Amino acid sequence: MTPKPADADFIARLTKDLPAGTLRPADPRYLEEPRGKWTGQPTYVALPRSTAEVSTIVAACHAAHVPVMPYAGGTGLVGGQISQSGPAPLILSLERMTAIRAVYPAENVLVAEAGAILTDVQAAADEANRLFPLSLASEGSARIGGLLGTNAGGVNVLRYGNARDLCLGLEAVLPDGQIWNGLKRLRKDNTGYDLRNLLIGSEGTLGVITAATLKLSPRPARTATALMVVEGPQSAVDLLSHARDIAGEAVSAFELIDGTGLRFLAATLPDIRLPFADAPNWVVLIELGVSAQLDPNAMLETLFETGMEAGLVSDGLIAQSQAQRDEFWSVREHIPEANKRVGAISSQDISVPISLVPAFIEEGFKRMAEFGPMRINSFGHLGDGNLHFNIFAPEGQTKEDYTDQSEAIRLALHDLVHEMDGSISAEHGIGRLKVKDLEIYGDPVKLAAMRQIKQALDPHGIMNPGAVLRA
Amino acid sequence: MTPKPADADFIARLTKDLPAGTLRPADPRYLEEPRGKWTGQPTYVALPRSTAEVSTIVAACHAAHVPVMPYAGGTGLVGGQISQSGPAPLILSLERMTAIRAVYPAENVLVAEAGAILTDVQAAADEANRLFPLSLASEGSARIGGLLGTNAGGVNVLRYGNARDLCLGLEAVLPDGQIWNGLKRLRKDNTGYDLRNLLIGSEGTLGVITAATLKLSPRPARTATALMVVEGPQSAVDLLSHARDIAGEAVSAFELIDGTGLRFLAATLPDIRLPFADAPNWVVLIELGVSAQLDPNAMLETLFETGMEAGLVSDGLIAQSQAQRDEFWSVREHIPEANKRVGAISSQDISVPISLVPAFIEEGFKRMAEFGPMRINSFGHLGDGNLHFNIFAPEGQTKEDYTDQSEAIRLALHDLVHEMDGSISAEHGIGRLKVKDLEIYGDPVKLAAMRQIKQALDPHGIMNPGAVLRA
Repeated sequence: MTPKPADADFIARLTKDLPAGTLRPADPRYLEEPRGKWTGQPTYVALPRSTAEVSTIVAACHAAHVPVMPYAGGTGLVGGQISQSGPAPLILSLERMTAIRAVYPAENVLVAEAGAILTDVQAAADEANRLFPLSLASEGSARIGGLLGTNAGGVNVLRYGNARDLCLGLEAVLPDGQIWNGLKRLRKDNTGYDLRNLLIGSEGTLGVITAATLKLSPRPARTATALMVVEGPQSAVDLLSHARDIAGEAVSAFELIDGTGLRFLAATLPDIRLPFADAPNWVVLIELGVSAQLDPNAMLETLFETGMEAGLVSDGLIAQSQAQRDEFWSVREHIPEANKRVGAISSQDISVPISLVPAFIEEGFKRMAEFGPMRINSFGHLGDGNLHFNIFAPEGQTKEDYTDQSEAIRLALHDLVHEMDGSISAEHGIGRLKVKDLEIYGDPVKLAAMRQIKQALDPHGIMNPGAVLRA
Repeated sequence: MTPKPADADFIARLTKDLPAGTLRPADPRYLEEPRGKWTGQPTYVALPRSTAEVSTIVAACHAAHVPVMPYAGGTGLVGGQISQSGPAPLILSLERMTAIRAVYPAENVLVAEAGAILTDVQAAADEANRLFPLSLASEGSARIGGLLGTNAGGVNVLRYGNARDLCLGLEAVLPDGQIWNGLKRLRKDNTGYDLRNLLIGSEGTLGVITAATLKLSPRPARTATALMVVEGPQSAVDLLSHARDIAGEAVSAFELIDGTGLRFLAATLPDIRLPFADAPNWVVLIELGVSAQLDPNAMLETLFETGMEAGLVSDGLIAQSQAQRDEFWSVREHIPEANKRVGAISSQDISVPISLVPAFIEEGFKRMAEFGPMRINSFGHLGDGNLHFNIFAPEGQTKEDYTDQSEAIRLALHDLVHEMDGSISAEHGIGRLKVKDLEIYGDPVKLAAMRQIKQALDPHGIMNPGAVLRA
């Protein structure tokens, strides 16, 4: 039996099993990709209010062989939530399931439904005097289900880990519509295979996450933030080593900022205040979070002095107020928007072993030079070995001039990542954008195992077909 | 085709494909369980020297439908490494694959083969001025492959996580004999399903781990250790909250010690020096590890004073030397040996949400009272909500007097764990000992998914059959 689209007939039948208003034609907003790269095919959206309704919907899709695409905040950057071809999937949006079901401050645990927006989860943790450390640019619209479905990263991974490291348990609807209740709030539980981590990062292809038990942390009593001008990527990596010697695990963010990015900001977002008069070539943003007994500003001063003495640092600013901290972060966080305005030919989200980051940047620049005097904005989560390596047309040209070279550029960079035993998707996932590259660069034995697992759990291939694995 | 035993014919054929001395009849030591509970059936052992040889062995087993049982340190407590029935499996011991393949201090990464003994990995990290924080009683003989295969826990989980949290990548031989090279040393890698975490904790039923990329940590510059006498489990939980308020993430161990355990020590291991003259009813062992700027002893003093004021603590000792620290830990670490000498009727390895630990102990005592005036030693990793809840015959009786009640006792306690949404195996795994209990208490939807995954990856059912899932 071949897959069938979520057509009017199917929707009419499913409507009878659900409360009024649960199913409707999908508004354009469900079909748009955040960077405007593609548009999804017209279809329907389901807006369940409960896990039981999610189960009803998925079971019906399973029985009728109709594809279903879980949808959270719609902020994904690899097309995991945009279906352009094949039988039209029913979009299953979790946006009505936003409850914070419980907070257990003494246990450092919070239980949230999959539709909860990240900033709302952060706020609920904050109210309990705890920290939910997941933080990224789209946090005002990204939802927990999507963040876990894609194993999101962000700026605090260095200290607190990826989304999967912040999850203790899941409730999910599996591809046959059955509800797995795995909402444990335990730190240790060795009762069988790790279904939780299998679903996390599977991008909606193995089931629908409906709720999660999340791990909270104590809030650091004192936080300090600095920008330091470094000579280059190797100096930045060396400075990170010094930062860890001084502050240990208290280094919560260590972000690399490229002078190209600062110039893009100046050109496209003039309202963003830039901390240095002339854009330096390389800057790092460092944040420390420590307990009340320690002085993080003094630690940053020590780091600055150590860095100066070692010839790693040539200038620096330590934020003197929350407003200034916000200003520093605003620079970092607006770089993707500036990139979008300039218009990248190709945007990579890669990681390599951290000691190889400088070599990657150097060799990446060389390989790009073969395409022309490209502008490169190479920024990101240096502490995790995760770079966003974005390629722009030479001054005076546009990305349209390089449309036919965009794939060659991407593959040249992914070749390099592969040579360095890195990852072609550090934090954004595979979605539909990188399916081909995963086939090229992924370990074939792992890929075969992935296909076997997909076939076993979703024999009709209804869960987000075409994402991660070719449909 | 039904499974076939690893008999002399099969071994004779396989011998031709392997270097001399790789296959031999299994010595008794491979067939013994650490607590002497069962003996494995006679069979052969394979002692490969390389991943390629592991691949040859597993591929041959796959082709011939002969079961294969990965074997690491042999220290597991749930019979995952002991086969008593069914076609005799070939024991595949990793003991010759002990290399530390590489250490990357700047990246906090170490690559070890599966046969490396935990203390050797700790020492290699230490030589690089780093910490590999996994630590447990059997660390002198437990091997990395087994520690990952069972997702081992131990005394530092509170701060550093379980074995799975300390692993960045794996090399493994899958059930068809193919080698998955997943030895990445990346902090972020979202390229497909999380095969690493699926293998970790699968107890050798989905493949053989042959090597692992392990995560190191900075070594805490200063460590301090204390024993504090608390009124009961609730006081211990409250004291943990205070400890975290004072020391944050620096609390690296928080162990509960039961007066019954101290009395068992005095009776069976008189050489172990007990720090308090009369065994208190409840003691906690607390360890802090901090950076050079902080004074962990002062923190413990503050905790002691806070605890006294709050009526949680009545007495305490802060270790004044490394020798005294070792003495405190020796008390904690010899409790399992004392238990073994006294002879438990039933030993549980359970976890519940940490705020429910006091209620679990109280209600557990009540339910045990229905069986008689049982002696209970309830100790363990309180900070993780993980208790080893061991039941002993009343004074003057032996475990043999309760043989016929041992199952009822176990089920009564597991019922209670289940009511509290806890885990019937916090850190030891399922092995063969808890297969039935997993069927009783496990989520049926998860169990069905586990069987589908097992069938998909190991269609002939050759990998450690009968462990985790009924063969």
